[in-house]
Amino acid sequence: MPGPIQSIERAAAILRLLARGSGRLGVGEIAESLELAKGTAHGILRTLQGVGFVEQDRDSGKYQLGAALLHLGTSYLDVNELRSRAINWADALAARSGETVRIGAPLEGRVLVVHHVFRPDDSPQSLDVGALLPLHATALGKVLLAYDVTLVAALRGGEQEAYTRRTLTSPTAIKRACAKVREAGWAGERGELAPDEAGIAAPIRGHGGIVVGAIGVSGPVDRLCESDGGPNPRLLGHVRDAARAVSRDLEASRR
Amino acid sequence: MPGPIQSIERAAAILRLLARGSGRLGVGEIAESLELAKGTAHGILRTLQGVGFVEQDRDSGKYQLGAALLHLGTSYLDVNELRSRAINWADALAARSGETVRIGAPLEGRVLVVHHVFRPDDSPQSLDVGALLPLHATALGKVLLAYDVTLVAALRGGEQEAYTRRTLTSPTAIKRACAKVREAGWAGERGELAPDEAGIAAPIRGHGGIVVGAIGVSGPVDRLCESDGGPNPRLLGHVRDAARAVSRDLEASRR
Repeated sequence: MPGPIQSIERAAAILRLLARGSGRLGVGEIAESLELAKGTAHGILRTLQGVGFVEQDRDSGKYQLGAALLHLGTSYLDVNELRSRAINWADALAARSGETVRIGAPLEGRVLVVHHVFRPDDSPQSLDVGALLPLHATALGKVLLAYDVTLVAALRGGEQEAYTRRTLTSPTAIKRACAKVREAGWAGERGELAPDEAGIAAPIRGHGGIVVGAIGVSGPVDRLCESDGGPNPRLLGHVRDAARAVSRDLEASRR
Repeated sequence: MPGPIQSIERAAAILRLLARGSGRLGVGEIAESLELAKGTAHGILRTLQGVGFVEQDRDSGKYQLGAALLHLGTSYLDVNELRSRAINWADALAARSGETVRIGAPLEGRVLVVHHVFRPDDSPQSLDVGALLPLHATALGKVLLAYDVTLVAALRGGEQEAYTRRTLTSPTAIKRACAKVREAGWAGERGELAPDEAGIAAPIRGHGGIVVGAIGVSGPVDRLCESDGGPNPRLLGHVRDAARAVSRDLEASRR
């Protein structure tokens, strides 16, 4: 069987590079980052520009992601079965809990937010769909880590990034937390990504009981947590109920 | 100068094909649609799967768009200058008008929604960001058509799709409507995409006065339109003010 097609892999690497950091790069910077000859990088960029996947800034000549990717990316949401099965349950969870609800699935060693229901109040909120969150510092991520051995391998890199004083950074501490998640059937996070924010999440199981994602609420520590640091039991119950309901729907869809 | 790289163009064509219709296709269907040998299509699909741009359904063996595209697509929004300059004005327009606000830019002969502010009430609404709307049946699209000669070329195809009895479908009628838009400086749409829905939009001008997008409100005909069919003058004023404000910000950013 023939191997992967190099030019497509290189094109994908350029798009990933442009999705990181400031978002605008010159052809020289791109060539250097990916160890490509400048002519090679230029040929790929011109092709990507032709199909609308990158755009070139008129003034600076730098490249950035193109508009055609937005439509492809949101089209992905239409075929994402986890998301389509979970939408109604996520709405119900937001209404019951009064908190922000998000659904996450693993992507490249992080949590990809595939659905986000705003907290049902009038406060300004920005949409997280498409965002990548750290596994070790979010309740959604801890759920994914706890049930996926391939993700735990990502911890081999050693100490993980500290977002607050409370972030678990050592692989040992994270693995211990994952064991607790498996035992309890849910994950909590308190001030580990942002000082005053907390999260509660539970696993969504697909065909054959495999964990395919996580659903959870997030919000201020003083609303989500009890004075002893544990999660509010009413919210935890709502999150677990929602996770079970989505799992039932996913399982039923395959029969 | 070397031409575009064929394998990348074919990969992009496959992704576009998957973004249309039902979203799941077998390798045979893909090969046939794009007039590729089945082995060629398979090699491209496997490479796209390797980089996370497509996923293969375990049960059916069919291919669909992959999760990595969602992150790339939403990353595009972070670098989209039109959107970043317009966000605050769009919020203000939604608050003043009490209606749904959307910002559109041209993509592949349609209107790509790059920003969407929900109508400020508690009604359930689904996010349109990333959606492609028809040019000839929306106020946003009529604005883009009116100021972009390359888009008008898209009408050469002849009769356009009718969404309601009121949709303008003949190139002549659409061109006449565009001339009116240029004269008035704004576009209206009443029951042309959905029977009871209407829209009002105005052009956003970038560097050098070129129209780069449109901002508008949409909602029920009885709120947006007067009894004579014209737009509510108060809403029209708010839309035009917002469009001018965004244009000023875009122009100022290039000085």
